[in-house]
Amino acid sequence: MSVKTIEWIEGKIKIIDQTKLPGELKYIYCKDVRDLREAISSLRIRGAPALGIAGALGVILEMQKSSARNYPDFKREMEKVSNYLGSSRPTAVNLFWSLKRMSECAERNRDKSIEEIKEVLKKEALQIMEEDKWCNRQIGKEGASLIEDKDSILTHCNAGALATADYGTALGIIYKAKEEGKRIKVYVDETRPLLQGARLTSWELLQEGIDVTLICDNMAGELMQKGVIDKVLVGADRVAANGDVANKIGTYTLAVLAKENKIPFYVACPLSTVDLSISNGREIPIEERSPKEITEGLGKRIAPSGVKVYNPAFDITPARYITGIITERGICRPPYEKSLKNLKK
Amino acid sequence: MSVKTIEWIEGKIKIIDQTKLPGELKYIYCKDVRDLREAISSLRIRGAPALGIAGALGVILEMQKSSARNYPDFKREMEKVSNYLGSSRPTAVNLFWSLKRMSECAERNRDKSIEEIKEVLKKEALQIMEEDKWCNRQIGKEGASLIEDKDSILTHCNAGALATADYGTALGIIYKAKEEGKRIKVYVDETRPLLQGARLTSWELLQEGIDVTLICDNMAGELMQKGVIDKVLVGADRVAANGDVANKIGTYTLAVLAKENKIPFYVACPLSTVDLSISNGREIPIEERSPKEITEGLGKRIAPSGVKVYNPAFDITPARYITGIITERGICRPPYEKSLKNLKK
Repeated sequence: MSVKTIEWIEGKIKIIDQTKLPGELKYIYCKDVRDLREAISSLRIRGAPALGIAGALGVILEMQKSSARNYPDFKREMEKVSNYLGSSRPTAVNLFWSLKRMSECAERNRDKSIEEIKEVLKKEALQIMEEDKWCNRQIGKEGASLIEDKDSILTHCNAGALATADYGTALGIIYKAKEEGKRIKVYVDETRPLLQGARLTSWELLQEGIDVTLICDNMAGELMQKGVIDKVLVGADRVAANGDVANKIGTYTLAVLAKENKIPFYVACPLSTVDLSISNGREIPIEERSPKEITEGLGKRIAPSGVKVYNPAFDITPARYITGIITERGICRPPYEKSLKNLKK
Repeated sequence: MSVKTIEWIEGKIKIIDQTKLPGELKYIYCKDVRDLREAISSLRIRGAPALGIAGALGVILEMQKSSARNYPDFKREMEKVSNYLGSSRPTAVNLFWSLKRMSECAERNRDKSIEEIKEVLKKEALQIMEEDKWCNRQIGKEGASLIEDKDSILTHCNAGALATADYGTALGIIYKAKEEGKRIKVYVDETRPLLQGARLTSWELLQEGIDVTLICDNMAGELMQKGVIDKVLVGADRVAANGDVANKIGTYTLAVLAKENKIPFYVACPLSTVDLSISNGREIPIEERSPKEITEGLGKRIAPSGVKVYNPAFDITPARYITGIITERGICRPPYEKSLKNLKK
């Protein structure tokens, strides 16, 4: 996988500006948390696992420069940075998870010198990135066991290399299955309004030589009805303790269509996406984004001025629609209250 | 309703160029069948009932100029015109219905002089247009009886004034319900790839002062799941004898979502859209359109070059998902084999 979505390079965060894809593969450097927060808010970097990494790197990006002389001052600064980054996007839990992990790491090392704390924090952030790579590979292995030769797989949005530090979650499974010699055909929803499927997923699948066909979101049902789709495979932004899944808007619709057409529906994500502190999907905060993403996001205005717009970025897929949740420690099956808790231990 | 989608003006067909909406309300004149066929193929005019009218007017547009001296020659010319127009778009049956009706009208009058035949054909075409207006009003009345005060109605694509000669089928019901003093909230899918919902439906609803909210196609499920939608109301391009409905791609998905969320799902169309010669939806020809509508249709290229694309313009909603089919002669209920046949008699 040649795509490097996020890297730590000499005190800067290097990311692909995903808003420029597929027209241009442009890298940008975030030199402070303001740059990074802007990049997150405007989806230059997106995808739950990548946001987790971005959060951790964002903390060290800023805290390396801290001139605090004592731990309480350092901690206060760090909390400010955390809150600032955490206020960028509310739904994907990985961002909060990694910020919390960084905070706990500092706390564990509070008796060290500030310079030493900076050093362990840097190690922790890079460790989070390394773990994500490992998770991708493990999820790939676990998930590929479910894929059969000649499967046609439907996916939505982007849960691939561009959403992680390695080859992705849902798409990682496809890459792994291909490595194993399985011939896979992928259908990808364009994923309105921001077209992550059209712009990102089809781009990275083509890079890797995967047979990919682009459709509009409203065409997935027709394909399922015709018996073309063998499996649906998506990522997740947050999984509640009961197995309800928040993921890109449109995921719930695919799950209902899959159920109606008796097609297995799988979610792939690292356990850092599972939020046991939230009992069910109704408690997951759903980000609403600007109407302009729908009315003007594609280069020209496509709706009359004055029209009201509703633009939720995610929806909740109730656990009962989900055949399995594929994690780095194995595949969870219903009842998810038990299976998720067991793996998170 | 101030919108005049199609008119017969001094030997020309005047239409709104719907590809220019909502930015510009531009009228164009089709002076021959080539102009008209191009306008149909590129969706400057669209919507099953409007296509029926366009077909009939297209026949007189050309046959008024015929220099045939006898009926066989006249009939041959007319068949050529019919076939040419009929080859523009395969799914909406109204086009074939009106062309057949024109042909039968000529046949009934074959013993008249060519000039007289031209005259009766012109009357027939204008009659088809008048009947569509009447159908709209009747469908409006029938359908409005189903609508309650404060209903939130989801619609897809455009089944309004821009798809007919009057105020529409599905949207006609909404206009009529509003006339009756009912407060209606409409949610409209943008309807990818050509955005008839965003460009046309939201435009005409705003013109008529209807409370309308635009969403992406993949957001309808989320609204239904949250209990926001009271009814789904769509048009149709062809209805088979068993009640299966061909309509704009995405309609099947809405029907499945409506069933899952126990929301009534209604189809509104004139009986000219019902094709008793076709027993079920699998026999309805589905138009596939250019990949460019998806990859380049919005002003800028949104997918990598080389990606495969699947672009069906319609899908089939099986009759079992449909609560009722609202026609000018009443509301059909299941079993549709019987109820449709009864009304078509």
